[in-house]
Amino acid sequence: MAASEIDRMIQLLARLPGLGPRSARRAALALIVKRESLLRPLGEALLRAAEAIRPCSVCGNLDDRDPCAVCRDPERDGHVICVVEEVGDLWAIERSGAFRGRYHVLGGTLSALDGRGPEQLKVGRLLERTAAPEVSEVILALGATVDGQTTAHYVAERLEPLGVSITRLAQGLPVGGELDYLDDGTLSAAFRLRRPA
Amino acid sequence: MAASEIDRMIQLLARLPGLGPRSARRAALALIVKRESLLRPLGEALLRAAEAIRPCSVCGNLDDRDPCAVCRDPERDGHVICVVEEVGDLWAIERSGAFRGRYHVLGGTLSALDGRGPEQLKVGRLLERTAAPEVSEVILALGATVDGQTTAHYVAERLEPLGVSITRLAQGLPVGGELDYLDDGTLSAAFRLRRPA
Repeated sequence: MAASEIDRMIQLLARLPGLGPRSARRAALALIVKRESLLRPLGEALLRAAEAIRPCSVCGNLDDRDPCAVCRDPERDGHVICVVEEVGDLWAIERSGAFRGRYHVLGGTLSALDGRGPEQLKVGRLLERTAAPEVSEVILALGATVDGQTTAHYVAERLEPLGVSITRLAQGLPVGGELDYLDDGTLSAAFRLRRPA
Repeated sequence: MAASEIDRMIQLLARLPGLGPRSARRAALALIVKRESLLRPLGEALLRAAEAIRPCSVCGNLDDRDPCAVCRDPERDGHVICVVEEVGDLWAIERSGAFRGRYHVLGGTLSALDGRGPEQLKVGRLLERTAAPEVSEVILALGATVDGQTTAHYVAERLEPLGVSITRLAQGLPVGGELDYLDDGTLSAAFRLRRPA
């Protein structure tokens, strides 16, 4: 049947999020069919990434240079630090174009269930950075989950003595959201946090 | 934001079937997080596959040796050749364990709509192989689609002068299939092809 090299490729592909055993086989076939246009370039890109990509020593973003492109950019607003859970969140915010300050990647959330405590989050480095005189605001852009909000609460407490403004993202209806399809929690939050029209 | 090496990796991952731009980003992050256990091994596996995997010169299966593992295996029944559209079909049949003969990968189907004619299918090689004295049956395991059945008809016509037995896969209810959920075509075929109980 499938050769060992193909099996190995399928096994590794099946470990990617979003691909199961069946779609990994389809992906492997597609790769072999496009040997020069996809299989080889992807293999080379992965090895280059394995060599080059490192976490930014300032903010925790991933980049092939350190500090990362955001931290290097002199145009970014140094007064505001946006705290996110993971690098994927930072990328999502960058794609939205909603924010032009600096970031800090915590590296996860506190979680009583999964046994993740404060020592696993990069809070110490955040306190150091926030203590710099130019920083006036920290935005806690953490998930609207129990763990995310617990973490936001904890980080806010640690930041409080530094006397900067601490904010969090608004909650409410998503743009284009129809009330009919909204979960109860979001609907309740949207009522509780209602504003003058 | 994302560095050029990351962007490149995401762009290539997004070209895999089953991954879109969003899941390609998630996959890229998962790969970077598992740099030594997944990213580097996958990169190496892809490059090794790009070097090693070739179509079998006998049957068209993909393998890192030529002839492929099926064609090399002296235990396989040389009297029967199973004709499939694509290598993925061959793998599916091998996983099922339903067949222990040899294969022939046509490389697609005829398609009036997509302008694929007989010259794009490996029919000539199939005729050569079928002419060998030990071959007594050719199973046309082509898809139950219009193009698949057109192709089966064409291949059967070409094979006829060779005097071997030409068969096709049974059609009917899938195992575990409930009549209630079955499409009309399958249900009609199951009635038309009904057998004594």
